[in-house]
Amino acid sequence: MALKVALLGCGVVGSQVIRLMHEQADDLAARVGAPLELAGVAVRRLGRKRDADVDPALLTTDAEALVTRDDVDIVVEVIGGIEPARTLILAAMNSGKSVVTANKALLAEDGATIHAAARANGADLYFEAAVAGAIPLIRPLRESLAGDHVHRVLGIVNGTTNYILDKMDSSGASFSDALEEAQTLGYAEADPTADVEGFDAAAKAAILAGIAFHSRVTAADVHREGITEITATDVASAKAMGYVIKLLAICARSDDGRSFGVRVHPAMIPRTHPLAGVREAYNAVFVEARSAGQLMFYGAGAGGAPTASAVLGDIVAVARNLLAGTRGPEESTYAELAVHPMGETVTRYHVSLDVADKPGVLARVADMFAKQDVSIQTVRQEGHGDDAQLVLVTHRASDAALSATIDGLREMDIVRDVVSVMRVEGEDAP
Amino acid sequence: MALKVALLGCGVVGSQVIRLMHEQADDLAARVGAPLELAGVAVRRLGRKRDADVDPALLTTDAEALVTRDDVDIVVEVIGGIEPARTLILAAMNSGKSVVTANKALLAEDGATIHAAARANGADLYFEAAVAGAIPLIRPLRESLAGDHVHRVLGIVNGTTNYILDKMDSSGASFSDALEEAQTLGYAEADPTADVEGFDAAAKAAILAGIAFHSRVTAADVHREGITEITATDVASAKAMGYVIKLLAICARSDDGRSFGVRVHPAMIPRTHPLAGVREAYNAVFVEARSAGQLMFYGAGAGGAPTASAVLGDIVAVARNLLAGTRGPEESTYAELAVHPMGETVTRYHVSLDVADKPGVLARVADMFAKQDVSIQTVRQEGHGDDAQLVLVTHRASDAALSATIDGLREMDIVRDVVSVMRVEGEDAP
Repeated sequence: MALKVALLGCGVVGSQVIRLMHEQADDLAARVGAPLELAGVAVRRLGRKRDADVDPALLTTDAEALVTRDDVDIVVEVIGGIEPARTLILAAMNSGKSVVTANKALLAEDGATIHAAARANGADLYFEAAVAGAIPLIRPLRESLAGDHVHRVLGIVNGTTNYILDKMDSSGASFSDALEEAQTLGYAEADPTADVEGFDAAAKAAILAGIAFHSRVTAADVHREGITEITATDVASAKAMGYVIKLLAICARSDDGRSFGVRVHPAMIPRTHPLAGVREAYNAVFVEARSAGQLMFYGAGAGGAPTASAVLGDIVAVARNLLAGTRGPEESTYAELAVHPMGETVTRYHVSLDVADKPGVLARVADMFAKQDVSIQTVRQEGHGDDAQLVLVTHRASDAALSATIDGLREMDIVRDVVSVMRVEGEDAP
Repeated sequence: MALKVALLGCGVVGSQVIRLMHEQADDLAARVGAPLELAGVAVRRLGRKRDADVDPALLTTDAEALVTRDDVDIVVEVIGGIEPARTLILAAMNSGKSVVTANKALLAEDGATIHAAARANGADLYFEAAVAGAIPLIRPLRESLAGDHVHRVLGIVNGTTNYILDKMDSSGASFSDALEEAQTLGYAEADPTADVEGFDAAAKAAILAGIAFHSRVTAADVHREGITEITATDVASAKAMGYVIKLLAICARSDDGRSFGVRVHPAMIPRTHPLAGVREAYNAVFVEARSAGQLMFYGAGAGGAPTASAVLGDIVAVARNLLAGTRGPEESTYAELAVHPMGETVTRYHVSLDVADKPGVLARVADMFAKQDVSIQTVRQEGHGDDAQLVLVTHRASDAALSATIDGLREMDIVRDVVSVMRVEGEDAP
């Protein structure tokens, strides 16, 4: 007997899911142990021209009726956004359907409600496609590493911003020129806010942190900074020092392991770091675990077909579970670790200052760092006269101490401008 | 109620499994939903001094009795080799136990028997640790990519040979000096045959190919060449051309997708290829799938703790399945694709010849390639007089055509010696 799949959304991802379910029908049936059949596709408007070669009789605008239909076994949600996705997923679960979703925003905003509904109804909830597209990451983290202790997850999880930063690095382009190119090529949306301001990466970081640390994390727990203020000068000066600027999502335990931080911000990483070689719109995620050591996962983080690949893998898993009368792993939040405030995050910093060219300037600047217990690793003076610049790289210090230092520097008469402050990551990686 | 684990073997991996089960007992219990308890540890001799802090009362030399004990739920086999591992695993399954194993040799040699016993007894069989240590690879391939169509798996799956080749590349060392260093550092065994002749990598390639192509593959299906004949000159000349030599495991579908080849051999890859940057004893595996595109998995491919991490992840999975009264995915061989002979493998080749320095030599050599339909991409003449060397790189050609070409070249009076023939891989990768 066929298992019936209801699809919510028929856009870039949904149309690929339909195509692959059709083209790979025989393989999917063999792998599941039963054929998969498309029961219906919920869309906003019926008339629209679509990429997908879908029987018009399957289309419906009544998503709520579709997800509660008696003959539907699995609901696949690829609409995105909070509503109506949440209402539809909850309705599906309350009708006993298992759910596959690619919805990072919803899981990061209100995962607790969705997971609770899955548990209450004995329904499966799979969401591999929500983070880093085709790259298997959720399953390795919550299953392969279930016997390990994850210290840190550090990755490039947004293809749009990686494309922009990569272009700025390779061509010297400004942020706005690189963004325009990304938009022309379809890597960035007309309104790029969700990507360039880090919202998309923050949602993924929240999901990854929750799984890695067996705790509940929401998007609101994530410290978030975007890349709109990165200048061509920042990129060039990083390059000159052997670094590249990437937008990183970092989930890291505190040194005592009893809390963790989750943050998304641009950071300088050494060009020798494996993440530095991640070009264009690719994604890559480093995972550091106590026994496994350092692992890296690399691949296409977005796009219709790659995301559909992850969705289909989840559909197969859910379908196998249904046939076996079982469920996949539930949400695991038993550790209930606290998310520490950004001020407690410890990392290194690259600080660039416009300073007056007077004797004793360096000593006074160094003194301001020392006052906050921020130790300086290297300092370089560039130019002179009105163009004098100090470039400092610190040892590890807390974000709070660094912020206090910067506040202090801004008030010094000899400091004309704090030109840039950027975190430095990945120096202890291979 | 606790789930009881019987451990077969207390060596490098087994002792780490014991340590981690003890140190992480609370986390494991929370993740499984019940405590895990060590029921016994089968060893060859009782008296030996061990790394593991294990209660001597748990040690036994009667492995057969241990694996069939009524109170044992899960049997973990980390002895390695064919026997007694096979007999013990079969005995365990016939007594209804689920099995976690790291035994690549057994699965590659006689996986059919082991998988059949698992199926017949409704037992779980998990073996993430059998390939590439801590790197999640089996689970992503058989679950995350279950809705995709894998074209190719290409990877560095043996840390010992990667360490040796990396040393040869970075220091110019000979094979024997690099091997000696690897032995001193514990990366290579006193008898390094299994590693340097490619047996270990071939077993892993067989396992990966079987999963990737949903077909049955054994070690005997794998074309295998080791690295013992790689010279410092080979490495230097690859380096001069912008290549690095790696021992690769390659599982690739034929162009029509209806058969596939599995091979392990040294190959030249461009230094810009992500696998080229895999240093020391690390492993990395590329997977190319129709929808997902290119994925890479990187990490520690061997060692006690990393391998134990993979074993523990599997123990957690099996334990969860037991509590849920279900099983993980079975072996999938429905596609029954044929393994094609090595002669049908299509790739590119780097050929280096000692030739007589006479007019017309290049024309005659080129003619021999043309006769076999092997098209030349580049040719370079080095030295002159008695030292004249021709270095050719071909376009894609079948292994049979290349072999026939080389046989023909060996018979030509103007060819003094075929100095080296090496495959070139990874040029179409990012």
